[in-house]
Amino acid sequence: MKKITILGSTGSIGTSAIDVIRAHRDEFQIVAMSAHGNHKLLMEQIEEFNPIYVSIGTEEGRRAIEERYPELTVYMGEEGLKKLGALDEADIVLTAVSGNVGIEATVEAVKKGKRIALANKETLVCAGELINKMVEEYGAEIIPVDSEHSALFQSLESGRREEVSKLIITASGGPFRGRTTKDLEKVKLEDALKHPNWAMGRKITIDSSTLVNKGLEVIEAHYLFGIDYEDIEVVVHPQSIVHSLVEFRDRSVIAQLGITDMKVPIQYAFTYPERGENNLTERLDLVKLSRLDFEAPDMEVFKGLKFAFEAGKIGMSMPLIYNTANEVAVDLFLQGKIQYLDIYRIIEEAMGKHTPVELKNIEQIKEIDRSLRDEIYRKY
Amino acid sequence: MKKITILGSTGSIGTSAIDVIRAHRDEFQIVAMSAHGNHKLLMEQIEEFNPIYVSIGTEEGRRAIEERYPELTVYMGEEGLKKLGALDEADIVLTAVSGNVGIEATVEAVKKGKRIALANKETLVCAGELINKMVEEYGAEIIPVDSEHSALFQSLESGRREEVSKLIITASGGPFRGRTTKDLEKVKLEDALKHPNWAMGRKITIDSSTLVNKGLEVIEAHYLFGIDYEDIEVVVHPQSIVHSLVEFRDRSVIAQLGITDMKVPIQYAFTYPERGENNLTERLDLVKLSRLDFEAPDMEVFKGLKFAFEAGKIGMSMPLIYNTANEVAVDLFLQGKIQYLDIYRIIEEAMGKHTPVELKNIEQIKEIDRSLRDEIYRKY
Repeated sequence: MKKITILGSTGSIGTSAIDVIRAHRDEFQIVAMSAHGNHKLLMEQIEEFNPIYVSIGTEEGRRAIEERYPELTVYMGEEGLKKLGALDEADIVLTAVSGNVGIEATVEAVKKGKRIALANKETLVCAGELINKMVEEYGAEIIPVDSEHSALFQSLESGRREEVSKLIITASGGPFRGRTTKDLEKVKLEDALKHPNWAMGRKITIDSSTLVNKGLEVIEAHYLFGIDYEDIEVVVHPQSIVHSLVEFRDRSVIAQLGITDMKVPIQYAFTYPERGENNLTERLDLVKLSRLDFEAPDMEVFKGLKFAFEAGKIGMSMPLIYNTANEVAVDLFLQGKIQYLDIYRIIEEAMGKHTPVELKNIEQIKEIDRSLRDEIYRKY
Repeated sequence: MKKITILGSTGSIGTSAIDVIRAHRDEFQIVAMSAHGNHKLLMEQIEEFNPIYVSIGTEEGRRAIEERYPELTVYMGEEGLKKLGALDEADIVLTAVSGNVGIEATVEAVKKGKRIALANKETLVCAGELINKMVEEYGAEIIPVDSEHSALFQSLESGRREEVSKLIITASGGPFRGRTTKDLEKVKLEDALKHPNWAMGRKITIDSSTLVNKGLEVIEAHYLFGIDYEDIEVVVHPQSIVHSLVEFRDRSVIAQLGITDMKVPIQYAFTYPERGENNLTERLDLVKLSRLDFEAPDMEVFKGLKFAFEAGKIGMSMPLIYNTANEVAVDLFLQGKIQYLDIYRIIEEAMGKHTPVELKNIEQIKEIDRSLRDEIYRKY
């Protein structure tokens, strides 16, 4: 029986993980789970899975949970996430919280030498080098849950890391594929919230439309697999069936394909190196799909991707700046305070003004993040 | 330094293998090679690679080689192939001779516990169960060289055999894809010899057009990977870029892709479990390809595939009958003695008349093969 902690159990990744665990209750047990604001759903999950610990983001949620489950250990907020990450009882920690708050909880799990099913992009984007060092030091293990990185991870099983000549990350292209910069000027919030292939949270849906999401994935792939940015390519593939590909030095390309369903990579991260049964996901039917298309991404229009390669190649603190600036910009856009293309402007300006420094510890990362956040919010 | 025997060094697989070895002369050494009729090319290869043994199919060739290379050990014909298969000096035997003559030489290599880079389809189609038993008994190893089976083999590295839920073998569809049975009635030899994606020998080019080649691959895949015929699917993919796919029980599909170049699977069979450099093959460019198409094969028109599934499911001696009948029929078609659709008629008739028997040894296989051959040739 594998014991699992789910950080972010009420989000789209979290609820998919719940589906996987529900289908394999003889193999997996939830020892802890956390939610930010949706304590009602969390309480349903507590009812069904009977965890030992939970963490919740709001005072109202804490009161409601403690009232109904007086025996349960209830933590709160960022501190609560860290506590859950460090639990001795868990074998696997799924970090499905989005944003910088996921980093510290992941670090706690790394320090305990656990398997981390990583669905939080920020962890490696903002602290990739630090985390990689710690993973080695503490004998932890990171299995990516993002569909693209899981595809790369699975494809890499067919060869050795030193035999890789290129990673090819696919991108749906988002709802604005084919548009010009002029078109993007007029984009409204509701347009940006429509993703063609995946149902996800609001922030990641905006990131998919700007290709910042793909940019974060490029940086994450660099840290996960140790591949130079020159050897990472993004290819637009509107059907999102080929989740990503690895080219080896013998010119053989291995790809992972499937229906767009996060349950597949989540379950894989839980069961690796084995593969369990999955009767929840539809089988891939190439004949029914009939065709798969590929095109180059337009990085002059979708600067979110271009900036990521730039930030990645500079390295040090620059990917952190890229991510934080984007996080604030998307929040401002979701609040209706800025226009769509201001997202790119805010990222570009933050990167332009920043002098990269080496990242030595998590406190420093938090400080850089906070200071940039304050600066941008003050301006808008 | 890996020592290699090439059975069939002047054919299309053989010359590709020569290219691979030429590019890695510090890793591979040819100890023996054979040719059927093209002794001139064989002599050029002898000049370049200086093998210890050769075998040739014609008396004229033997005389020419012995005259020019008096120090060389020269064998002849089927006996010669068997001698080369059994050489102690070789680590790897590439069996790139086509037709039933490849079976016995492969058996010799199996008995010596060697790695067999298998490019001869007939070996497993006609003697799959026997060969599999012997491979286990003698500790030999079969690495498939056919692009589809190599793709399956490479994709299987991403999981375990018992986790496979389906093998998906791709087919170009051949030059007559989309045609009706009525269209096929009028097919001339020169039309059938035009393959859209691969430059190959005449016999295999005809087999590609009838989908018998794909049928042989289905049967071969069954014996290579131990997968039931119910779990083997053929999908037509005209671009021949996705060489085949494996669906695992977690609904994850792993595929191998690449430019159509036999050097990739040949080199892989030589270097497995490692992957060496390959600067001879063009890199895959998905953006340039732009699209990949998939459709169901029409097994009512292209009965070569339907008969293969039927023969495979019956098992025992039936795949042998399927193969021999086809081999003779294609020969008759190449000689201009029968019409294109007679190929299917001859296979169907042979299978219909045959009472399947268990195959106990190679002599029995040769006897069944010979008797059917005589019968069909007598008739036409």
